[in-house]
Amino acid sequence: MPTNRRIVLVNRPQAKASTSNFRLEELALPVLQPGQILIRNQWLSLDPYMRGRMNDARSYVAPQALNEVMLGATAGKVIESRNPKFAVGSPVVAYTGWQEYGVSDGVGVSKVDTRSVPLSAYLGAVGMPGVTAWYGLNRIIEPHEGQTVVVSAASGAVGSVVGQLARIRGARAVGIAGGPEKCRYVIDELGFDACIDYKFDDTAEKLNRALKEAAPKGIDGYFENVGGAMMNAVLPRMNPFGRIALCGMIAGYDGQPIPIDNPAWFLISRLTLQGFIITEHMDVWPGALQELGAHVASGRIKYRESIANGIENAPQAFLGMLKGANFGKQLVKLAA
Amino acid sequence: MPTNRRIVLVNRPQAKASTSNFRLEELALPVLQPGQILIRNQWLSLDPYMRGRMNDARSYVAPQALNEVMLGATAGKVIESRNPKFAVGSPVVAYTGWQEYGVSDGVGVSKVDTRSVPLSAYLGAVGMPGVTAWYGLNRIIEPHEGQTVVVSAASGAVGSVVGQLARIRGARAVGIAGGPEKCRYVIDELGFDACIDYKFDDTAEKLNRALKEAAPKGIDGYFENVGGAMMNAVLPRMNPFGRIALCGMIAGYDGQPIPIDNPAWFLISRLTLQGFIITEHMDVWPGALQELGAHVASGRIKYRESIANGIENAPQAFLGMLKGANFGKQLVKLAA
Repeated sequence: MPTNRRIVLVNRPQAKASTSNFRLEELALPVLQPGQILIRNQWLSLDPYMRGRMNDARSYVAPQALNEVMLGATAGKVIESRNPKFAVGSPVVAYTGWQEYGVSDGVGVSKVDTRSVPLSAYLGAVGMPGVTAWYGLNRIIEPHEGQTVVVSAASGAVGSVVGQLARIRGARAVGIAGGPEKCRYVIDELGFDACIDYKFDDTAEKLNRALKEAAPKGIDGYFENVGGAMMNAVLPRMNPFGRIALCGMIAGYDGQPIPIDNPAWFLISRLTLQGFIITEHMDVWPGALQELGAHVASGRIKYRESIANGIENAPQAFLGMLKGANFGKQLVKLAA
Repeated sequence: MPTNRRIVLVNRPQAKASTSNFRLEELALPVLQPGQILIRNQWLSLDPYMRGRMNDARSYVAPQALNEVMLGATAGKVIESRNPKFAVGSPVVAYTGWQEYGVSDGVGVSKVDTRSVPLSAYLGAVGMPGVTAWYGLNRIIEPHEGQTVVVSAASGAVGSVVGQLARIRGARAVGIAGGPEKCRYVIDELGFDACIDYKFDDTAEKLNRALKEAAPKGIDGYFENVGGAMMNAVLPRMNPFGRIALCGMIAGYDGQPIPIDNPAWFLISRLTLQGFIITEHMDVWPGALQELGAHVASGRIKYRESIANGIENAPQAFLGMLKGANFGKQLVKLAA
């Protein structure tokens, strides 16, 4: 009988998260009850929101329980089934957490079609990150043709889709990413019109100047994945009636929050800022996933993955992602 | 022939505005051209937005020109007419600025009915401040019955209408005002459910605690007239999906902007913040004014006025209003 290796949270970060917050455990696999399925996870999705769950603070999701498996989305194959709705061999996406195997009664488990879309994409461009991008762009920013959309973390799972969807709508897409390699990828591979390297333009003033060049007609929509310095540089460049979609605050997860220096811009430019959590907008998922799947299958939406190998390396990969060490969607490969 | 006394802007404030920024002038009245009317202004409206116009900075309105009459709304009577649409004796509201007489070709001049609504109210509860309150409450905050709406500057021209409209919609209205006298008025006369004295609760922490008591079920809508410390105290008390209407930034007009300390609240509580300028939403004016006029005529909406006498006292009254020395809508009485 194979054992299941998993990662649990053993304590909460005081400031910066570290590998000492996690523990690798090995357990026997349970015997399936009627109605249950056993999933061999092939891919684990690592996402910034998990950092928020590690804190024991009021947030939009309940905190991650201590000594329990870290929650998270996974993609794998049904290898044993006592549920007539799931045949052995079916590729599925589920929310079984940071572990090699998942047991489920089928609730929240989706069968997916891997003929034209790779299984791992259902954790990225055709999964939660893709729908997050879709919602923020289409329901909050709603760019018109010729308008300019700026997105932070532009080479990442969400940001890359935001810019490509903006281009499909006829808007100018400007990315913000860390380092020349990511910026080149954002322009050359993803087809953004411009990309700003925040490691080079590393002050609000420099960022502001770079934004002026990259978005000469001003910014109509900003998709905020990061928080902090980016927001302060973007605000003065927003056009009247600009819209800001806010779905991430990586910059504020570790330690002190980063203030918005001059909120008068919201009034001066009559801006709308809206924070959202994509799991609260389930009504848009089916349509958005269909659209995203078609774009990925046709090659119109491209994506890139950073792959760590083995569940034991999940914590290190997660911490790296929080610092921007990943390049594209961060995954952990759990089985061939 | 009478002369016209007016106030012009002679220089721009370096930090705080002062009386030395203004000059009183006396000029001969012009002879009317065909199509023109001469208005004897009885009331001049003083409004916080005028402070923004005194700066030579990018803002939502063009800066006030130097050595020209300070712009502003006025209410008065037509005393001479070469325009068939305006009879001598008609009460009108116009935008003739800080002066005793206005000459106009009739564009932007509204005839008003003073039988059940006093003339001065057309500069307050049934004028621009009232419509500002109406728009922010009904188009941005949209409170449901039983929800809680908080408004800063609650005894003022805008804030007083926000709270009373919220009550009419069945919401709980919580005001923030400066001093026990204003707070008593907000509760006893205007009918708010609670009022917080920011001069007593003078730190973010105390304000936060006071908000917890005044809004025990959290805050669903916040109408921001002030900016700064209020916003920081309100944000942590906002309920999920709360809406913030932002129409004023008095706190930031003089000198340094006041940051939003922890923007993560926008994400944590999935808030929407929207800045707006009421003159960009002219479509709502007729309906809103009709509703507000009916409420004032029936006594369902009450208001209070701070009245300075004589155009020569307009600068001092204006500066006092910026510091909250007014109590209700700030007006200058220019004629009996």
